[in-house]
Amino acid sequence: MSVASGKPNRAASSNFWAVIPAGGSGTRLWPLSRSARPKFLLPLLGRESMLQQTFTRLTELTEPERILVVCGPAHAAAIARQLPTLPSANIIVEPSPIGTGPALALASALIHRVDPRAIMGSFAADHDIVDTETFTRVVRAAIRTARRGDLVTIGITPTKPATSYGYIERTDEVILTHGDDVAYRAARFIEKPDLDRATEFVESGRFLWNAGMFVWRVSALKAELKRLQPDIHEGVRQIAEAWESRDQERVTAQTWSTLPEITIDQGVMEHARRVAVIPAEFGWSDVGDWNGLGELIEQDGLGNSVRGNLLKIETTNSVIWSETGRMVAMVGLDNIIVVDTEDALLVVDRKQSQEVRKVVEQLKASQEDTLS
Amino acid sequence: MSVASGKPNRAASSNFWAVIPAGGSGTRLWPLSRSARPKFLLPLLGRESMLQQTFTRLTELTEPERILVVCGPAHAAAIARQLPTLPSANIIVEPSPIGTGPALALASALIHRVDPRAIMGSFAADHDIVDTETFTRVVRAAIRTARRGDLVTIGITPTKPATSYGYIERTDEVILTHGDDVAYRAARFIEKPDLDRATEFVESGRFLWNAGMFVWRVSALKAELKRLQPDIHEGVRQIAEAWESRDQERVTAQTWSTLPEITIDQGVMEHARRVAVIPAEFGWSDVGDWNGLGELIEQDGLGNSVRGNLLKIETTNSVIWSETGRMVAMVGLDNIIVVDTEDALLVVDRKQSQEVRKVVEQLKASQEDTLS
Repeated sequence: MSVASGKPNRAASSNFWAVIPAGGSGTRLWPLSRSARPKFLLPLLGRESMLQQTFTRLTELTEPERILVVCGPAHAAAIARQLPTLPSANIIVEPSPIGTGPALALASALIHRVDPRAIMGSFAADHDIVDTETFTRVVRAAIRTARRGDLVTIGITPTKPATSYGYIERTDEVILTHGDDVAYRAARFIEKPDLDRATEFVESGRFLWNAGMFVWRVSALKAELKRLQPDIHEGVRQIAEAWESRDQERVTAQTWSTLPEITIDQGVMEHARRVAVIPAEFGWSDVGDWNGLGELIEQDGLGNSVRGNLLKIETTNSVIWSETGRMVAMVGLDNIIVVDTEDALLVVDRKQSQEVRKVVEQLKASQEDTLS
Repeated sequence: MSVASGKPNRAASSNFWAVIPAGGSGTRLWPLSRSARPKFLLPLLGRESMLQQTFTRLTELTEPERILVVCGPAHAAAIARQLPTLPSANIIVEPSPIGTGPALALASALIHRVDPRAIMGSFAADHDIVDTETFTRVVRAAIRTARRGDLVTIGITPTKPATSYGYIERTDEVILTHGDDVAYRAARFIEKPDLDRATEFVESGRFLWNAGMFVWRVSALKAELKRLQPDIHEGVRQIAEAWESRDQERVTAQTWSTLPEITIDQGVMEHARRVAVIPAEFGWSDVGDWNGLGELIEQDGLGNSVRGNLLKIETTNSVIWSETGRMVAMVGLDNIIVVDTEDALLVVDRKQSQEVRKVVEQLKASQEDTLS
């Protein structure tokens, strides 16, 4: 079934639903990403967009009828075109972006409405995963763990002391073993650490990257929302009740504007009673900035990641992404990123990749809003 | 008179002629400079091209009828359009560029043909001079010195230990004092030194930058050419004899192809008997590379030289030259040069500015010849 009740039900035997929150424009990938063409709509790695790759990956686990995309009003049409096999009713348009808390709560409530015993997984629209087979296996272990009532996170075994990711500390308490995968009781969620703490985390072997991958029974999330976020719980209950009725848009708009802006991590996961974490290694990246994207592009013998027509003289460890077809010459550079698009050019020190978001902030604050 | 005999003679009282060798494309200013639009034709500083500024500067010293421009076949038309007051006959087209030796020898022979007692000065077409008044004064002192028969150079008092310029060492022997200016006997010419030697040179106070500014009697140059470069002497004599005859082009083409390729410095000045040098300070630069051009553009409080639509975040001592109107964002950079043109983009470490010539070499060697 799909969230539009009455649609054909191609795989009634399974009750796993996948939700893709497609929010955020990826400001650190400016000037490629823009408000109007967010990161998840872009073919950053390969010919398909990040969203299309995410969708394809999830069709290994469930039918398109049980995949939902939650997005803002500006991107619904583009998502519909990029995912022709996704039922229209499964594109859930939130009136405005107020964090993953309300977005996933709404998706969960809409699923609960048609399938109260459903297990739901949430997977960001714009992350890269290299080893799809392992990903599928780990999600299956997470589904199995979630059946017991736990809120399950998939935590990525760190490969370096990243300071741009949040971390999850695990305990030694094993909840479930499934083949190669082990679900542990989670100890706590930690916000982005500084380099010293991140280094400690990696060395300890007990800390995992929080990749925003969650698997739970919709009924278990509902119970935790009721306890921890009663306003969100009540709001999405009202919206789900009005869904597909004449009142859907009015109730959604009115209710949404009263909900608190919060992430699912801060609103639920950090305070939930039963949280499990499954360590995983499948080549994950949030492709969060140009440094990260550069790492995912094949490099020449001098560490340069090249997309475009580059002439380089004594240049190393740099990233060039050109979409204009122009000749780009780089001379005597190390660790520099150049992004060349039709209407904007970015040059940034690779170690300062995170600061690119400030460019977008300044553009938004200025007259150059169309470029942001 | 002009080199075309029979033309009106507006200022017969003076016998100073100015020659502008307009060769070289300025490969280190790629991608702004190209073979087809060399540095001297570009308005790098101000609204006039470097050639136009040079010409205007020289009209303080002589009439347009006594200014010659020596250039290659590809640039004669553009020069004629940029300098409408220059008589057409004063644009001397050499069949191919073979250095300043033959170019200045030919100019000198053509001047000698119509004015054997002439004094000639040579000034590059693409150098920047800030203090025109002082420049004019120093050239007048050089003319006065040259009347005595010396080959005179104007040497620039160094302001830093530059390694991209040749140097002239002076002796303490004073040849002539004229107001604030002193002409010394020159000791020797030195090719571009390394940083250690350049630092010694600047500290000694006896070394001057060789700015390629020469003033001499055409009869004095003729005598030295006969002694030091007999082939060039005989070649330009034959060409001058055929000038304005039916045979001009045939003789010029045939003779030119037999002449040695050499600079006036190496061919004559380094071995001449009586060479004088006048130290001068008038804010001179050869605008040889992007680092040098950046120094001549007004800088913001953080040392950035900006031409274009720049958004910068924590960026210092950098140069941005954009001709596309695109938004250029620079983040976390120091000492980086970005040059943004319609069909090519350059990013170079400021300390490596000299290496930009290698880009042009590689373009010429490849299929991208139109970009060079």
